[in-house]
Amino acid sequence: MISNKMVGFVQNNSAIRAMFEEGKRLASIYGKENVYDFSLGNPNVPAPDAVADAIRDILANEDSLMVHGYMSNVGYEDVRTTIAESLNKRFGTSFTMKNLIMTVGAASGLNVIFKTLLNPGDEVIAFSPYFVEYNAYVTNYDGILKEVPCKAPEFVPDPKQLEAAITKKTRAVIINNPNNPTGVVYPVSVIEEIAKVLEAKQKELGTDIYLISDEPYRELVYADAVVPYLPKYYRNTIVGYSFSKSLSLPGERIGYLVIPSEISDFEQIYSAAAIATRILGYVNAPSLMQRVVAKVIEEKTDVAYYDRNRKTLYEMLTGLGFDCVKPEGAFYLWMKTPMEDEKEFCDMAKEYHIILVPGSSFKCSGYVRIAYCVSHETILRSEEAWKQLAEKTLKK
Amino acid sequence: MISNKMVGFVQNNSAIRAMFEEGKRLASIYGKENVYDFSLGNPNVPAPDAVADAIRDILANEDSLMVHGYMSNVGYEDVRTTIAESLNKRFGTSFTMKNLIMTVGAASGLNVIFKTLLNPGDEVIAFSPYFVEYNAYVTNYDGILKEVPCKAPEFVPDPKQLEAAITKKTRAVIINNPNNPTGVVYPVSVIEEIAKVLEAKQKELGTDIYLISDEPYRELVYADAVVPYLPKYYRNTIVGYSFSKSLSLPGERIGYLVIPSEISDFEQIYSAAAIATRILGYVNAPSLMQRVVAKVIEEKTDVAYYDRNRKTLYEMLTGLGFDCVKPEGAFYLWMKTPMEDEKEFCDMAKEYHIILVPGSSFKCSGYVRIAYCVSHETILRSEEAWKQLAEKTLKK
Repeated sequence: MISNKMVGFVQNNSAIRAMFEEGKRLASIYGKENVYDFSLGNPNVPAPDAVADAIRDILANEDSLMVHGYMSNVGYEDVRTTIAESLNKRFGTSFTMKNLIMTVGAASGLNVIFKTLLNPGDEVIAFSPYFVEYNAYVTNYDGILKEVPCKAPEFVPDPKQLEAAITKKTRAVIINNPNNPTGVVYPVSVIEEIAKVLEAKQKELGTDIYLISDEPYRELVYADAVVPYLPKYYRNTIVGYSFSKSLSLPGERIGYLVIPSEISDFEQIYSAAAIATRILGYVNAPSLMQRVVAKVIEEKTDVAYYDRNRKTLYEMLTGLGFDCVKPEGAFYLWMKTPMEDEKEFCDMAKEYHIILVPGSSFKCSGYVRIAYCVSHETILRSEEAWKQLAEKTLKK
Repeated sequence: MISNKMVGFVQNNSAIRAMFEEGKRLASIYGKENVYDFSLGNPNVPAPDAVADAIRDILANEDSLMVHGYMSNVGYEDVRTTIAESLNKRFGTSFTMKNLIMTVGAASGLNVIFKTLLNPGDEVIAFSPYFVEYNAYVTNYDGILKEVPCKAPEFVPDPKQLEAAITKKTRAVIINNPNNPTGVVYPVSVIEEIAKVLEAKQKELGTDIYLISDEPYRELVYADAVVPYLPKYYRNTIVGYSFSKSLSLPGERIGYLVIPSEISDFEQIYSAAAIATRILGYVNAPSLMQRVVAKVIEEKTDVAYYDRNRKTLYEMLTGLGFDCVKPEGAFYLWMKTPMEDEKEFCDMAKEYHIILVPGSSFKCSGYVRIAYCVSHETILRSEEAWKQLAEKTLKK
């Protein structure tokens, strides 16, 4: 028998991954080109050439024992310094390597922080719809995830509702900006209001409430959208970053935490997070990839590629009469389903070989997430299938 | 404030890592060549050339989107198949990819298994001295680690004592063979007796007791020592492996779990372990390194290098009058300290720039662990320091 906690997780296994496996199954039957798999945030833009160049350069010029060896659990000092300096240049901050912990992707960074902060029963607030793995990351440490719903059709957090949800037990608030699954970018004005609420609540309750900025999609923004850097707006902010999307390296599991010196109990939290990195079995972020991301820190993925997909898909779907939230960031399009039960819609879409993720997987039913990090050709080829789906489901 | 659990971990932070940091500090003062750092299991033999060749080959010939992208959480199918076939060839087993889960090193594999198996209060037995991180890995999931001490000077498990320690709550027993920190290889006869005890206890108690074989040091054995492959001796065995030592890739965090089809509740445990891999934030083992280890699966590190170190150090220390357990595997030498308080001995050793790890870090005081995975020159150069330490501490 498996543990009781895992029984729950097995029963509610990630619908995203289930749809991904379903897409692979359909592709094996009908051919890859006849399946329109919009399920997974797996970038279709290859890593910049600079990544392979950096790997070859490191293999040729750096000591193998160092490149593949153990370092401090928080990561190589030179790598952390490079990243800190890059952040300082971009955001006018003054981080040093002592504010950085290299992590096994953003997912490990969040686990490290929750392991560090949460006692059983502590509350973490997330704005729904949200990346549903947050639930697991919080309950891993016996915390309780509380949802504060964003209102349609803007899907930005409501500071008033946040205020009402905060209790003495609130240890952290997660912000995921640009947002997965909606593609919305929360503007500065909303962030400023959230910061005001948190400051006031900290004072009122005599607690520290940490704002966890989960930003794997920071570099993926379109048109004029600007993603505020949260440590500049709220003192108790911790940032989780990943190179999965910015450099198309999701399988490599490489990211970092920024723990600013200004946060309450900084020394204690940084030390504990370093130890949590070790005892949770990550030990350290993959060594070669640490060295690679430092070498290509100024490289970015081909945002124009995703932008073209975004426009094509948005125009196609709205043209067919679907009701979509216009995405400003990430590579997801959030679409209202014609029927209330979006799972039914997903099942019908599957008949046309369109693979979607139901909104309930993000705690928001009546919507679906469409990951447009696919090839442009897939979007173009999917038009006929979408047309048939529209005819079948949209009221004339 | 950090979580209560982490307060304990911060207070008892790994002495191994502390000594490693101390070694780095001394090296920065006295020069690297004047510090004899035997603290960390960080291989001094570079990865085989085949590793860099494989990386270059993959970059040149495989699709970047596949190499750096997401795959199933359990790892690439072709990689798992290659490893399964290699194990079958070596051990006469009949594993397929469906028995393999690629992991972020052995540490993540153990965390995945304990997350999968343990309910709060469940017991896991380890034979002391043992790698002290086991404690963290078990308490991460509110399990309780119970020690069954090995007797000096052989330091092999005593099946009778194991039998006495098993209760209705015993979910797992960890065996680490070759052993860290003692360098002892547990022989087949002991494994057979342990298997007998476990089978009988399972029947008596009506429970399943899983044997967790933690074998990062499997390939590092000397002279005629043979390391039994545990699934062949006990049905409910799960194997955790790492390429950290076998290919000198400790920083890359790459390993795997073998979950044989024959174990009780196989389907459920495999599915849950796959999900645990995801929700613990590993998501998947680093992708490029998965592909690399499959390509070089028949490569091994230079065991002769460690063997020379082993002989030189063992002869040097016994020649000086120290009482050592002759190592047969791994790259650790386990030495009795002349005084009862081995921490005092470590402090004295530090005065001669010799960095050791106290046995209490492995739950066995009166001994120290000497990691001889250093350069041969370091061992030779350390002789004078050892001589002075012997003069100061050994009774004439």
